[in-house]
Order: sequence, then C-alpha cells, then structure tokens
Amino acid sequence: MRVLWVVSIAALLAVAGCSSAERSVSKADAAIDAKVRQKVKEMTLEEKVGQMTQLTLEAFVQSDKDGYLTLDPEKLRNGIVDHHIGSILNCGGQARTPENWQEMIAQMQEVAVKETRLGIPILYGIDSIHGANYVLGATIFPQNIAMAAAGNLALVEKAAEITAMETRAVGIPWNFNPVLDLARQPMWPRVFETFGEDAYMASVMGAAYIRAQQGDDLTRSDKVATCMKHYLGYSVPRSGRDRTPAYIPERELRQHFVKPFAAAVRAGTVTCMVNSSEINGVPVHSSAFYLTELLRGELGFDGFVVSDWADIENLYTREKVAKDRREAVKMAVMAGIDMSMVPYDYSFYDTLIELVRDGEVPMSRIDEAVSGILRVKFKLGLFERPYPNKNLLGYVGQESSRKVNLQAAQEAMTLLKNEAKTLPLARDRKVLVTGPTANLLSVLNGGWTITWQGDNEALYPQEKYTILEAIRAKIGEDNVTYVNSVTFDEEKDIAGAVSAAENVDVIVACIGEPAYCETPGNIDDLTMSEPQLKLVKELAATGKPIVLVLVQGRPRVIRTIVDDAQAILTAYLPGMEGGQAVADVLFGDVNPSGKLPYTYPRFASGFTTYDHKPSENTAENKFNPQWPFGHGLSYTSLSYRALQADKSEMTPGQTVRVTVEVTNTGDVAAKEIVQLYLSDLVASVTPAVRQLKGFRKVDVRPGQTQTVRFELRWDDLAFIGRDNKPIVEPGQFKVSVGELSVMLTVPKPTK
Amino acid sequence: MRVLWVVSIAALLAVAGCSSAERSVSKADAAIDAKVRQKVKEMTLEEKVGQMTQLTLEAFVQSDKDGYLTLDPEKLRNGIVDHHIGSILNCGGQARTPENWQEMIAQMQEVAVKETRLGIPILYGIDSIHGANYVLGATIFPQNIAMAAAGNLALVEKAAEITAMETRAVGIPWNFNPVLDLARQPMWPRVFETFGEDAYMASVMGAAYIRAQQGDDLTRSDKVATCMKHYLGYSVPRSGRDRTPAYIPERELRQHFVKPFAAAVRAGTVTCMVNSSEINGVPVHSSAFYLTELLRGELGFDGFVVSDWADIENLYTREKVAKDRREAVKMAVMAGIDMSMVPYDYSFYDTLIELVRDGEVPMSRIDEAVSGILRVKFKLGLFERPYPNKNLLGYVGQESSRKVNLQAAQEAMTLLKNEAKTLPLARDRKVLVTGPTANLLSVLNGGWTITWQGDNEALYPQEKYTILEAIRAKIGEDNVTYVNSVTFDEEKDIAGAVSAAENVDVIVACIGEPAYCETPGNIDDLTMSEPQLKLVKELAATGKPIVLVLVQGRPRVIRTIVDDAQAILTAYLPGMEGGQAVADVLFGDVNPSGKLPYTYPRFASGFTTYDHKPSENTAENKFNPQWPFGHGLSYTSLSYRALQADKSEMTPGQTVRVTVEVTNTGDVAAKEIVQLYLSDLVASVTPAVRQLKGFRKVDVRPGQTQTVRFELRWDDLAFIGRDNKPIVEPGQFKVSVGELSVMLTVPKPTK
Repeated sequence: MRVLWVVSIAALLAVAGCSSAERSVSKADAAIDAKVRQKVKEMTLEEKVGQMTQLTLEAFVQSDKDGYLTLDPEKLRNGIVDHHIGSILNCGGQARTPENWQEMIAQMQEVAVKETRLGIPILYGIDSIHGANYVLGATIFPQNIAMAAAGNLALVEKAAEITAMETRAVGIPWNFNPVLDLARQPMWPRVFETFGEDAYMASVMGAAYIRAQQGDDLTRSDKVATCMKHYLGYSVPRSGRDRTPAYIPERELRQHFVKPFAAAVRAGTVTCMVNSSEINGVPVHSSAFYLTELLRGELGFDGFVVSDWADIENLYTREKVAKDRREAVKMAVMAGIDMSMVPYDYSFYDTLIELVRDGEVPMSRIDEAVSGILRVKFKLGLFERPYPNKNLLGYVGQESSRKVNLQAAQEAMTLLKNEAKTLPLARDRKVLVTGPTANLLSVLNGGWTITWQGDNEALYPQEKYTILEAIRAKIGEDNVTYVNSVTFDEEKDIAGAVSAAENVDVIVACIGEPAYCETPGNIDDLTMSEPQLKLVKELAATGKPIVLVLVQGRPRVIRTIVDDAQAILTAYLPGMEGGQAVADVLFGDVNPSGKLPYTYPRFASGFTTYDHKPSENTAENKFNPQWPFGHGLSYTSLSYRALQADKSEMTPGQTVRVTVEVTNTGDVAAKEIVQLYLSDLVASVTPAVRQLKGFRKVDVRPGQTQTVRFELRWDDLAFIGRDNKPIVEPGQFKVSVGELSVMLTVPKPTK
Repeated sequence: MRVLWVVSIAALLAVAGCSSAERSVSKADAAIDAKVRQKVKEMTLEEKVGQMTQLTLEAFVQSDKDGYLTLDPEKLRNGIVDHHIGSILNCGGQARTPENWQEMIAQMQEVAVKETRLGIPILYGIDSIHGANYVLGATIFPQNIAMAAAGNLALVEKAAEITAMETRAVGIPWNFNPVLDLARQPMWPRVFETFGEDAYMASVMGAAYIRAQQGDDLTRSDKVATCMKHYLGYSVPRSGRDRTPAYIPERELRQHFVKPFAAAVRAGTVTCMVNSSEINGVPVHSSAFYLTELLRGELGFDGFVVSDWADIENLYTREKVAKDRREAVKMAVMAGIDMSMVPYDYSFYDTLIELVRDGEVPMSRIDEAVSGILRVKFKLGLFERPYPNKNLLGYVGQESSRKVNLQAAQEAMTLLKNEAKTLPLARDRKVLVTGPTANLLSVLNGGWTITWQGDNEALYPQEKYTILEAIRAKIGEDNVTYVNSVTFDEEKDIAGAVSAAENVDVIVACIGEPAYCETPGNIDDLTMSEPQLKLVKELAATGKPIVLVLVQGRPRVIRTIVDDAQAILTAYLPGMEGGQAVADVLFGDVNPSGKLPYTYPRFASGFTTYDHKPSENTAENKFNPQWPFGHGLSYTSLSYRALQADKSEMTPGQTVRVTVEVTNTGDVAAKEIVQLYLSDLVASVTPAVRQLKGFRKVDVRPGQTQTVRFELRWDDLAFIGRDNKPIVEPGQFKVSVGELSVMLTVPKPTK
C-alpha cells in the first residue's frame, strides 16, 4: 500500500478559499437561544407543530384580479390562529406589485402577531431564484448558469445583494436559494438554476451568494435568510428527468455533490431544502443519514430543514417507502425534516400531532425542529419588526441595479465559435434576424420569472429589449429584417427567411429553448428541436454568413449545424438585460468574456464531464465534446506566460502561491477568466484528468499584462479515497493555467 | 422503523431456483488438493510465477498462411521452458481448422510435458462465446442476447453443451464464457454478449450454461472449464463506451450486478475473469474488496481469477492508480488476481519474481494463486491426458448440432409489431429485399465469429444462408428482388430500391448494425444510422407494406420509422442459422416466440429499465419505451387465466406454489414464454415496479391449455436494504403473470 497523508473531513470540506464568516456562537446568538428556549417552553404541542407547517399562499386567497391578490381573513385565521401555522410560501401564481406584497405580508403578520396567543410572526418564503422574480418591477438577473459563465465573483455577490434587498423590501425575509446542485446531467430541466458542472465553482459562487444575501446581520432591511438546496444529489437523475432516481456512489457523492453544501454551511446559510427524489433508492426526505448524520453531524449545519413541495406526502404516494401518511410523516420528521411544505392543507399538522400524542414521535424531536425555526425568526428580527416597511419600496428596481444586471448579462456571453472574425459585426451591415428566441423576453429569462414556468410573455415588462429589439435599436430599423420562421415545435415560414436572406449581409439565427421549469421542462432527447435545425440548414444553403445565438437553459445538441454557422454565441438565460447584452456583443460594444460552465455535448447520449478519468480519453476512445468546459473566445488575443509556484514541494498545512501573467496581445480591451487546474497524476482512486481549483476574472487592456495570483491549499490536493474519506497521497501533481504547467510534489511522510 | 425479516446473504444469493450442483468437497477434490500441495512444494519461485503468466498465441507464431498457423519451437521453448508459463490463449487472429488446433495444442503440450522439469501441462483458454467460434466448421449459435430472448433454458443448456464439446474436441479445455454482465446501458458494445437487462434471467441462464459446459466431471472429453465474466460491474459505463468508468452504488451493485456471479459460483464455475474497467473510481483489477472479500469471502468462489487483456499493465498506463509496472503488478496480485493475461511478453513474470524476492509479495499469496491454477489443471485431467484426441474431431459441426442451432435462432425471433396480420407472408408474394443486413452472414453473427470483430465476410461459410438467400430458397428466386440500397454508413441506391418497390407486394427491409466487438463497437449515439432511416422513410412513401427486420447487437433507436413499418421483427444476432430462421418466421413456417430481454428505448437519451421505480412512471412523467422488456407477439392468440397461489401469507423458509393456465385461443401452434413478476408494494428502499422471478417456455397447440407452475421462495421477496444487506419486509406483494395478479402478504414477525 502507498503511504498516505490523512486529511480530516472538516479540512477537506473547507474548499473554495473563502475567507468565510465563521459561525461562532456570538453573544447575540446566545441571547436568541435563550429566547427560543423560553418560547418553546410556553408552547403547546399544537403551536409547535403549527410552526413546522408551511402552506402555500394559494390556500389563503380571496380573489386574484388583474394580478392583484387579496387574502381571505377567515382562511388566514383558520391557518394562523386555529392551526398555528408558522410559514407561508410562494407567489400565488404570478409576480405581484411590491405594494400588493407588503399588504399581504402585513395582513398575515397582523393575524399572527395580534391574534395568536404567543404572537409568533409568520416566516414568509419565496423563490427569488434570479432576482426577486416574483416582485413586479424587480431586477431579474441572468440565471445562475450564466452567472457561472461570467466567472466574476463580485458580480455574483452584487446580484445576490440586490436580490436580497428587493425581496426583503416587499416584506419577504426568506429566499429559497441558492441552488447548489451540479449540472452533471445535461438533460435535467434545472441545469440553468445551477452554477454548472464543477463542484469548486459551485462551492465558491454558492458561498458568495449566501454571504451576500445574509450579510452579518439578518435583521437588516436589505438581507434575507438563504436556503441551500436541493440537498442532496438531486441534479443527476439517471433518466435525465426531474424528480426521478439518482444513483451516486458515496465516493462520488462526497467528491462532488456534498462540497457546495459544505461550503454553504460554512458560509452560514440558515435553512436547507431537501432533494425531492432519491439517492440509490433512498428518498432523501426519509433519510436520517443524509438529513442528520451527514448534514448536521459531519457538515455542522445548525439551521432548519424544510421539505420541498408535497414531498412528505410523496413518500407514500410516489416513492412507496411508506404505506400511508402517518408512516410518511413519522419517517420524514424523525429523519430530520423540521418544516413541511405541505402545501395545501392541515394533513401534516393533524398527523404529526397524532404521532406525538401516540408516543411515536418524541417531543424532544418536535422541540428541536421548532427551536430551529424560531431561531431563524429571531435572527431575522421578525419578532421586533414583523411588518413590511413602506419606506423600502424604493429599493425595488433601481437604475443602479439595472446596470449591474446588464454587466452580468454582458459578462456571461460566451463566444463558442468565430470563424474568420465574423464577429463583431459592423453597424452598417444589413441583418436578417430570425428564430424562435429572437423576439421574446420569456426565452431570455426562463423559469422562475413572473410565473413559475416563466413562459407568460404577456406579463413581461414591455420596455425591456428582446434580441431583435436591441439589434434594431443599435443599428437602426432599416438595417434589420425579421422573419418569424419557426417556433420551437413548428415550421412557420422558413421559405420567407431564406428569401429574406438574399437581401442581407449576415443572418443572426436565434435558437434555443422556450421558458420552462422543473418537471414540465423534461425532455426525451437533448438534441435541438427539429424545426430549428432545419431553419439553420436551409439558411446555410443561401451561402450568407450565419451567426447562431443560443438562448437555452441547458446545452441542446447542435452538432449537425455547427459547421453551418460562422459564429456561435451562447447567451444561456441572460435575464431582462439579455437582449441588450447579446446586441452589445454582436456589434462589438462588449468583448465577450464568458466561459462554458459545463461540457457542451456533441451527442445526445453518453455525457462525460470535463473532470473525467484518463480512461475516458484514450487513443481508441477520444473525449470529444462539442466544446469543453472553460471554453470561450474573445475579440482580442490573450497570452499566458510565467506560470510559477513558490514551492515545488508541499506538506500538510502548507499553501502554495501560484502566479501567472496574462497579456492582451490584441487590440480590444478584455476581461479574462483565468482558470487554474490541478491534476493528481497517480492516485489510489482513478484521478480526474484535471480539476478546477481557482479562477479569477481580470481586466486586461490591449498591450497590458496582469499578474494573477492563486493560492493552492493542502486540502485542494485531497480526493475521496477508497474508504470514502478525504486523503492526500504523496506523488506528483500538475498545476496548469492555459497551456502552461508546473509540477508540485508531495513527498512521502517521514516516519 | 418497520419490523423486518432478516435474510442471510447466502440465502439471498441463492436466487434462480437452480437445483444447483452443490460444490461439496468430494473425495476426488481432496485427492486433487493433495496433488496440488505436493506439486507446489516442488516448484521454484520461477515455476510458480510462470504458472500465473498467460500469453497470447500470437507470441509464439512462426507463420500464418492461408489461415493455417504454425508455431515457432524456439519461442514456445522460451515461453514454456525458460519462463515456465502456464497458460496460452486466443486464436491467433482468426478461426482455425480443428486439425490445426489439435496440432498446435499438441505441440505446446509436448514442450510443457516433456521439456519442463515438472511437466505441468499448458492450460489453453479461448473465447467460445456463441459456439466454438474460433474453430472452423463449428456450430455458431445465436449470441446470448438472442438466447435470452428465446427464453428456453433447455436450449441454453444444449447450446452450451455443444459449444463445450466442439471446443474440447480440438484440444481446448477452457472457455472464457459466460458473460454475466447485465445489459442496463444499451449503448455498451457488448450488450449482445449478455443475457439481457434482468439479473434473474442472467442468473438462471448463466448458471445453466456453466452446469452444461462443466458437467459433473471436467475430465470428460466434451466438457470445458468455464470462466464467469466480467466480474464485476463492467456493463454500465456511464459514457456508454466500453472500458470506461461505471458508477454503481453498493446497494444497486448487490441488487442487480452481483446476482448472476453469485449464481455462477453456486453452479461451480472454476475460473473468473475481471472487469477491465472501474467501479466508482476503483479499477476492479486493483481491488481486494471485489476480488477477495466479496468474491471469495461472501460469494464463496474457490476457483482462480484471471485478468482481462493487458489489464494489470493498464493499472498504470491507463487507470493511473499505480505509478509503474511494479506497483501495478503488486497491487493486482495482492488484490487477488491469480493469472495475468499479459499478453505479449515476460514483463509480468519478471516483475512479480522481483517483488517476491524483495519481500513485497509474500510467497503465501503466490502459492495460493498457483494452487488455484493447478487445481483446475488437475480437475480437467490435463496431467493424465494433455494431448488432443484425433478421435474427437467428428464432434465438430454435427448435423444434430445444426438443428439445435436452427431451433435456437427460430425461438429467439421476436415479433415487435404486426399490424393487420402483415406477417406471416404468403409464399406467392413478390418481395423486395433490401438493407445492409439482408445479404451478409457477418451481420447475423456479430463479434466473436471467426475473427474477434466478426466482420470478415470472406471467411464465413458460404453454404450458410443470408436472409436474402433463405428467402430466395423458400419462395423462389423469381419472387424476390434484391437491391443493394444502402450500407450502414452510406447511401448506395435508395432510388433503385424505391423503384423496385413498385413491382412487389411487400418490402422486407433488413437494417441494423455491422459486426463489431468490444471497444471498436463504441458509438456516439444509439440512433439507427441515418442512411438506414432514410431508406425506410423513402420506401414508406411508396405505400407498399414494409416488414422491418432488425439485425443488431443492441437496440438502436428507430422511433422515427416505427410507424412506417407494418411489421417489425427483431432477430438480434441469430448466428449461422439466422438467415434461415428469419425466413421461417416471415413466411409462417415458424411462429415467433421470443420476448425482449431488454427495454427497447424510444430515445437515445435517458435509458430506463423495466424494473424502474414508481417515480419513473407517473402522470407527469410516463415510462415510455419503444417496447417494454418481455414484449413479443405471436401469430396466434394466447390467453391467461386462473392465476393461483397456494398460500396468501408467507413466512421465512416457505415456498409459494403459483400456477396459471395459458390457452392457445388462435389457430397456430405456439411456444409461449410465461413470465412471473413480483412487486413489493411498499419497502424502505423504493421498490421496483416489478421484478422477474420466473419464466417457463411451453408448447401450446391451438385450443390447448397448459398449466404452468412456478415456485416463489422466501428469498425471492428480498431486496437490498438501506444497510446494503438483503432483507424481506412485512407487507403486501403482488404476483403477476400477464394481466393477472394475486396478492401475497408477509405478516409482521410475532415477538
């Protein structure tokens, strides 16, 4: 056996180089704990179980007229007073005005604070996934997959701050985000909600997001409680379909999927939402191993755990691990679920009370759950200030926020192909714009925008630019021809597009996906839809240069048309400023600087990630994606030199400082994401060919050289060993940036 | 927690209802053990390590002329005398005449027996995968996937017996078969070598194969030592490509992949070949857990373990778990590899001697390995009769064997679609035959036929029928038009086929895959190749009825042409009599009786097996394969009734007898595979929707009713629990045959 360096689990989990807010038990925390203890003592069983019960806003609706929702006082009283419920969620079907939100939240809190015995305020929770997407007029950012492509941590933080501010401004203190799942199954309909396929990138960005939204003081009127999700192993269903089984051996689970959650716990997230499905036949909602042993025991999470939508019910209706509701509720609560997103009725409430009375769920478990929930309510300052503050309404939709949003969209744009400098286009070119993503706002935003599915175009703010509108605004209507050639599913007028192409200099074909979310976004095949492929094929036959713009939540396979396009730009789901950002890049006002946060597949089967094993790239069996992870072109040329490490040997606890110089050798200012990879050359578990261990986005003017600094820590060298524990083995490690590399040696420990 | 019945691992592993040859330590075994101990005592380190060394026949070749191989005496002496090697394998590039085999084997044994100090005979091993496929004139059966479709255990046994007889007849006593991997990843290029996707079917068929080939006495001149392979977890590479990583959680490994190997051990297989690749980052060739703890400790295997081709070398050249050869050899031998298929040189031999001399591999481990190898040589009677027997040459290619082969091919044929009784065809029909699998023998046989890849058409026996030739022979040349319309990769003359279609009554389009094997059979996409799809589309436009004949190693996706065909017959890889069998079914001389041994996918992504979880078939997310596992039509109609179980409750150790009546309600004699499925309605690990637990093939004449009997044993109710151990939980179980079902209850154990 090889001699090994053992790494503590805690050390290994400290990935991501974050100077993290250590969660020390401060005086404030101690005071809160005392208040929680006191409150729990005063509570009846019914009051406790009510706190553990979360219902959807729809359960309390009186009327919903022209998007303005009013609540039914009787239903509210029934829920909050009679059933003591502690939490409400969701948007009642669509985004609301800030005023409507404030009124509704105030109405709930009135009941909770004034009409209940203990006056415990409601904890309202919502999915502010890419901005406060259920608040009309809020800033709707690029989806996380695009934020990952932008590769700029400061932007992730700014966007998260603005989202927190705009959410809290309307009276909502709890955001069901960030999504920390890894996009390692490209068919999964929630790929766009993730920070991509790499655990390191998701860890760093997820932790930054959490720190930015929570700050140091959750009582602040611009901060919210975050909810890391969907713990654990949700993103890689074998079938590719949402909410179907994943099979993840423990070693792989720890090597990849656990890491972003570990980073989120260190960043101090106060709540956790659970994977709706199962790992290896075990529904996570039923698993004490995942929810208690690993989450609390190993990762040290001390917030509370909320189920996903109806997922306790699903344990017997869908997963078949419980024979009835009673068994399901007991199983979930005993496994570690603290709050049930029921979401429509009082079945969970009634059943759990029964179980406690029958002695099947101990009061200690109830107290533990309720304490966690109350602690967050105290931390948020809800007891002191339960009501929304009208003075905060101005926080929503500020111009400064829009600018950050535009920058995020611009930096996300990823240039995949640019034959013979097709891009940028001169402004005097005649352009045919066509394709189903050219003239819709919904496709730029995707799911979780105004509505759950994000596909109600009529509800979108008409002052925002579609891609077509942004191009028209930039180069003038006269230079732009638009043909509505195909939808995602149907041919409309391909012939019209082909004939229009004769009179233009260049074709901008905007293809991709419609807006979707979760299970309704399931697909059978990753290939781009047939009418879109046909459109590009027929346009290519005209001989006019084609610029392909991809607007999509996941990387649809386009192998058969890649050669037909001279340039290919992917916009992912770039948000409300996405149309503008696409036009800015197409015409050279912005130099594209995004890099792919996933491996773009060439075929619809047999997906392989960038951090595959050596046996997946051999002479007989080439690793051959359409484009690799980290791929992204620029309008300038950049060159790397002088990669250096300050040590050639590394022993436990040491840090290696790595520097590299990047020079802009072209004539266009650039932002460059410098990525550092590590390769463990030999290991007792087959090593990945390379793994991302650092990235920095830097500005480089033409002719300028920037020195970029990284730190490699001991734990960065660890992998999950044969015993499923982290380990660093002696041997050779290759550190690489671009085409450059230096070697690092870990010597055998001396006896 | 639910109250559970605990099942011993040994009991669980006793699947498959085989009245298995218990491996008791008989007197003969004890005598062999004594001889082995004595022999090992006499051996030098070099002689021992030589026994552990296996080289390929190519290493000893003098000349290879017109398929007739002669060996180089010097090279042979260098290997057998100077390096003491104990085993040789392979076919030297292509099949040989029985005489050539006998001469070569005799020449090796002459050297081994007469020129070495201890006279230990060579153990020659070969891949007789579907018949003695490297012996010219031998009986080449349908590949295993087709044998599984035929669903007839007696046929599996007969084919295995004939294969053993024809292999041993030429002097080869060791067959590297059966393949016990499960076809749960349809892209894998070795799907055709398996008994399909179901663990129960592979267990029963694999065990039957082993018992048939080994018999009770391996010294018999018609028996061979078998080699269960490829232990373990080889068949589900995530990428779909051969020899790339699989990710299989232990629970799934035990629930599915371990079972056929456990059955094979119980059936007495004397050798085991190892998965070339890795499970969860651990190359199986390097794993003491898989090769010793699980294989010998839990499963009780007491034969010897041979590496696959170059796979010890691969530990450092490809898998990167060892830094050099020395580390690789030590790792593999210490993990439990007894014999290295090196295959070209003496590097393993030299390195292992060095390691023992340096004290890094203990002599006890060497003795253990050598003892296992010698034991098999003794069991085979090689010491007594090392030389081939010329009198056995008549065993090869007997007419009785051909008849079994034809029956196997006929029974494998699986009718997937038959609109408006398109099939069978009347003999007076004018038929257009076209497509790339219509007129080749290689495509009917696939890999492991005459050559490794099976694709050298020129070497095939010209007296055998292609599909086209068989149809011509059956209905007369005048009724048959043939057009060479497309190859697998290219259009040749689709227009010619379309125009020929005008003058016929029906089109028989034979499509599928060329012959391939292992890594060269890797594909990027499961979809049927484009020229073939186009051919069918254009033929369909003629309006003439199309009968599609699928000849393929794995289920290529044909969704887009299914509606274009009125009838679809899959032949899998039906072997040398396959052309005849296809024609027999097309024209009604044989009523098709095969059933799909895998889930035939509708799309090229997101594969789901028949034994999926309930969450994979819901209102929002339908399980929707092209055809389900077990699907197969008949020319007659069959009806099931009177499904009965002799108990409604079951407790440990009990057996439930299940009977069902099947009636042929049509007017054509049928063979029907009656399949029994079990569904555990609620379980602590999400239960499969159903699992196969029994199958019987019965003859049913028109109007006749057959009563079919099954036994369900306690262990059939077990699944692998959350602790990765087998368990039976109290609750309801549904037993179903066809559309019928009865319920079975397992009560809670009384205290």
